[in-house]
Amino acid sequence: MYELCKRLFPICRSITGDGVRETFRIIQSEIPDTKFKIYEIPTGTKAFDWTVPNEWNIKDAYILTPSGEKICDFKKNNLHVLHYSVPVSKDLPLSELKDHLYTLADQPDLIPYASSYYSERWGFCLSHNQLMGLEDGIYHAEIDSVLSPGSLTLGELILPGMSDDEVMFSSYTCHPSMANNECSGPSLITYLAKYLSQLPERRYTYRLVLAPETIGAIVYISRNLDYLKSHVKAGFNLTCVGDDRAYSLIHSRYGNTLSDRVLNAVLKYHYPDFDEYDYTKRGSDERQYQAPGVDIPFVCFCRSKYHIYPEYHTSADNLDLISASGLQGSYDCMVKAINALEWNQKYRLTTLCEPQLGKRGLVPTMSSKETYQQTLALKDLIAYSDGTNDLIDLSKYTHQPMERLIPLIQKLLSCGLLEEVK
Amino acid sequence: MYELCKRLFPICRSITGDGVRETFRIIQSEIPDTKFKIYEIPTGTKAFDWTVPNEWNIKDAYILTPSGEKICDFKKNNLHVLHYSVPVSKDLPLSELKDHLYTLADQPDLIPYASSYYSERWGFCLSHNQLMGLEDGIYHAEIDSVLSPGSLTLGELILPGMSDDEVMFSSYTCHPSMANNECSGPSLITYLAKYLSQLPERRYTYRLVLAPETIGAIVYISRNLDYLKSHVKAGFNLTCVGDDRAYSLIHSRYGNTLSDRVLNAVLKYHYPDFDEYDYTKRGSDERQYQAPGVDIPFVCFCRSKYHIYPEYHTSADNLDLISASGLQGSYDCMVKAINALEWNQKYRLTTLCEPQLGKRGLVPTMSSKETYQQTLALKDLIAYSDGTNDLIDLSKYTHQPMERLIPLIQKLLSCGLLEEVK
Amino acid sequence: MYELCKRLFPICRSITGDGVRETFRIIQSEIPDTKFKIYEIPTGTKAFDWTVPNEWNIKDAYILTPSGEKICDFKKNNLHVLHYSVPVSKDLPLSELKDHLYTLADQPDLIPYASSYYSERWGFCLSHNQLMGLEDGIYHAEIDSVLSPGSLTLGELILPGMSDDEVMFSSYTCHPSMANNECSGPSLITYLAKYLSQLPERRYTYRLVLAPETIGAIVYISRNLDYLKSHVKAGFNLTCVGDDRAYSLIHSRYGNTLSDRVLNAVLKYHYPDFDEYDYTKRGSDERQYQAPGVDIPFVCFCRSKYHIYPEYHTSADNLDLISASGLQGSYDCMVKAINALEWNQKYRLTTLCEPQLGKRGLVPTMSSKETYQQTLALKDLIAYSDGTNDLIDLSKYTHQPMERLIPLIQKLLSCGLLEEVK
Repeated sequence: MYELCKRLFPICRSITGDGVRETFRIIQSEIPDTKFKIYEIPTGTKAFDWTVPNEWNIKDAYILTPSGEKICDFKKNNLHVLHYSVPVSKDLPLSELKDHLYTLADQPDLIPYASSYYSERWGFCLSHNQLMGLEDGIYHAEIDSVLSPGSLTLGELILPGMSDDEVMFSSYTCHPSMANNECSGPSLITYLAKYLSQLPERRYTYRLVLAPETIGAIVYISRNLDYLKSHVKAGFNLTCVGDDRAYSLIHSRYGNTLSDRVLNAVLKYHYPDFDEYDYTKRGSDERQYQAPGVDIPFVCFCRSKYHIYPEYHTSADNLDLISASGLQGSYDCMVKAINALEWNQKYRLTTLCEPQLGKRGLVPTMSSKETYQQTLALKDLIAYSDGTNDLIDLSKYTHQPMERLIPLIQKLLSCGLLEEVK
Repeated sequence: MYELCKRLFPICRSITGDGVRETFRIIQSEIPDTKFKIYEIPTGTKAFDWTVPNEWNIKDAYILTPSGEKICDFKKNNLHVLHYSVPVSKDLPLSELKDHLYTLADQPDLIPYASSYYSERWGFCLSHNQLMGLEDGIYHAEIDSVLSPGSLTLGELILPGMSDDEVMFSSYTCHPSMANNECSGPSLITYLAKYLSQLPERRYTYRLVLAPETIGAIVYISRNLDYLKSHVKAGFNLTCVGDDRAYSLIHSRYGNTLSDRVLNAVLKYHYPDFDEYDYTKRGSDERQYQAPGVDIPFVCFCRSKYHIYPEYHTSADNLDLISASGLQGSYDCMVKAINALEWNQKYRLTTLCEPQLGKRGLVPTMSSKETYQQTLALKDLIAYSDGTNDLIDLSKYTHQPMERLIPLIQKLLSCGLLEEVK
Repeated sequence: MYELCKRLFPICRSITGDGVRETFRIIQSEIPDTKFKIYEIPTGTKAFDWTVPNEWNIKDAYILTPSGEKICDFKKNNLHVLHYSVPVSKDLPLSELKDHLYTLADQPDLIPYASSYYSERWGFCLSHNQLMGLEDGIYHAEIDSVLSPGSLTLGELILPGMSDDEVMFSSYTCHPSMANNECSGPSLITYLAKYLSQLPERRYTYRLVLAPETIGAIVYISRNLDYLKSHVKAGFNLTCVGDDRAYSLIHSRYGNTLSDRVLNAVLKYHYPDFDEYDYTKRGSDERQYQAPGVDIPFVCFCRSKYHIYPEYHTSADNLDLISASGLQGSYDCMVKAINALEWNQKYRLTTLCEPQLGKRGLVPTMSSKETYQQTLALKDLIAYSDGTNDLIDLSKYTHQPMERLIPLIQKLLSCGLLEEVK
């Protein structure tokens, strides 16, 4: 996954444009048998309260100082340009140029990431220290961009399962050269697609979606709302999943969907110090999937959360910030969530009173002070298999991780002591 | 309000009598356009388990010591007489007189307040230190009171609103010269009447009631029970609202009425250290409004709570204990509760997904790390406006005070992004 | 109760056999008028997933060392034999004998208690220190036991009340010479039978059951399931009730039955430091009564809980571990629970607003700062008697122990201010 991030990192992506298409080409090449379907949505398409804007492409951007030095060079770092800048080529004094320069006074060494999608502007981003060092005089600002009718690009992969009910993953493809936010999410989605496509069978159908943040999610929802509302049982927005620091769960609007429940149950055993945030701390496409009237059960999953980690939306969010192990941790967590969902049925004991486990070899036949504790997980699983508890409930009541219960459930199903409740 | 308290303080009030009528005359004079209606309920009137007692009036009361000194002089402090004392004029030795003297051993400098409404007695209240200093000998006890058929006086002001649904405030007029308990409550009710009567429009109808504690509330309920039960949506009993110490919320029987919810939501932002008490700590007319089968949604609001503050029911509850700022704090709190109730509708977003706020000038059109946080309250309000949350819920979910949300709601209603749910 | 424990202690009980019958003879002799009914359930009887095993009786068991010393002598301590051992009489070297010896390495001075009911074995239990001291050589193992068709013995006492609804107590009779676990439970059951049989009237019918643990409870349930499910409103499994240390409440599966509620309400006032355990800490016959589909409302009550106290299932669980006061504490607690259940109705105030308590002599007629607090329990009881709260709820809301509320309820019922809600 880290290698894929390295390939995606240099590309200049925005909410539209050729950088997005290049990104999809790379991702598609990773999943040979099961291709992402790519959709192009024309400029001007309405989606609820929004309209797909003009497509933006850019070849170059820089500033020439009075002494002729080239600074804010887009080719060195594509964060230097205010994204969606209109073209400009003009000489102007520093005092006027400053209205178009964006910096972070409290992180003076870093270049900020900024954009202006729906209001025509041009501008450059640079470190506050560099701004402070600029001499008076006449500067030349050059942005060789095109903002014109085109289309917005999004991708979708559907992996059918035994049921039409769906588990959905989403991430986004509109961020330029930042590693955690957001090469990590598309990379994780790609590897989850690999994992899911090789499963011998899937109970759920899986839907994986990559689109530009906000406008892309809104367009996607507007095209699929009724189907998503009636079929998606759990959704996960994946973003900032590449560093080695925290694990974060940003809850749904009321914190009570299947997504909240399963991810909480996974994280509490494997990363007990994970951070939980309520929905007021949301910030990515969970905002759209959980919007009033949309109400698709979605949570957001991060390692260090957007808006929280100091490198967020700056040039310090680079390939040094993320790691193979950080991405792997996120991947493991999502695979555990998938397995838990696949087994998340309600189970019912087929006998009355405790079954005699000893005669089936499930517990020792000799009863002593020491044998009792060893088989408690199995006995507690049986004790709460009264047909009202799903796997997540069983984990809560037995104080056992779901991945420990699943093999016990398999054993009890195979000897007929448990049955699934339809 | 403090000036009004000063005028009310010297009057000798009890559960009946001319002191109550004088109190109402003063209050009526403060609200020229909208007068309190005054009701006189005759002695002997039945009200549930109770009967309106004889009316009590008193001209004078004192004790002459063996040396001829006048002590326990009613004209100096009307707490000196046991309220509802029958007339007496007799000589008796100290040993016999002591059966009629009431003191507070643990607050030896203070005169207690005591009464005996439903069992005929006579007596005097004095400081424990004074009692200890009394010499042996023959004393003369003189109480020039009249206890005879008359009536109980209560007052009611109804300010109609767009709806028949009501918000109700109550306080009581039966306490003699004590400032916090209870000149402050009638004074606050008077100023809330002024505030409410000048509002350009009222969604709710407002009902303000002043009556003697317990018997007055019971009589009032017995005359209006069915109407109050079906129309009062939130009620507040106001008592001990004049000092500068705590803010106290005494909850309804189960702590879950609209009154509990709105007052809690007001207090948690403005006086976060306020004291909450469950219904077992009740003590004033909330006892009647919340009685089983009555069940009118009522809480009680105080600054320092009755039974808790040390001056309670003693001569130390005087005009030095309360202040203009203390009364103003209570007034502000009630006005906030009124405004919150007026806006306490459920709201629903009229678009699907997030609305595009930028094109309406509601958020900055340029997206950077710094602009996001500034508009969170607005975005959180939208995120929870799913038609199930009233203003109080919205305050809880967005972690914002209601008074900050109300102008945002007005803005969103006016641009058509929100609608009220009927 | 302690004397009864002393009589029961020496008997070698198991899940079947003459030791159980001897135990019942002693218990029956304690309750002359109302006898336990004794049932004999033949070997081979099916009960859900189980079958009643062969009956086991034993005359003697010991090991002879190479030097001819008799060790592990059953006649000195019946824990020395692995319970349900098949007969054996053979010479064998120490290395082979060791496969049949059971010790506790971490409690090296104590003899463990062990059994093998459903898989044929023979063995001896001894202290780990004794095992370590055994010399090499040829040993003789002698177990003079009989394992053959017979029956399982269980006992039941039903004390009819005004209602067919039942309160049930259970304990078990299958443990050999251990005092707390389990001479204490049958002894307490016996004394509760005495208490209940002399009550002038009983609202509930009481059912007291003694049977071997697990198989006995399962057999008993299989014979009575429908009746128990529809009639038992609260059940208590009593075990390890004889020491002077903790009080323990092991909750039902979801912790929300009448049994949980009443025992919790008793313990929180009388032994506020009692230990609460969720259902995953169960271990005795509550496992069967609360099994999925059985769902009889049962909790388990202990002083120091099984699996927790260090002497559990060892030779240190002897008559020194329990005491008359320890047993008495358990008895008092159960009697309080019985009384609470007998009065656990919902009550409704018969007047609207507060009743006038003074005219009935229920509170002082003079109102002063000091009289108010004295009658709060009575007033709070009235305030929450709205027909929705039973005695347990009233205890919770008024913050008063149930035994304090019961006489107040009796007083209010007798003067007509309260009525029971059917």
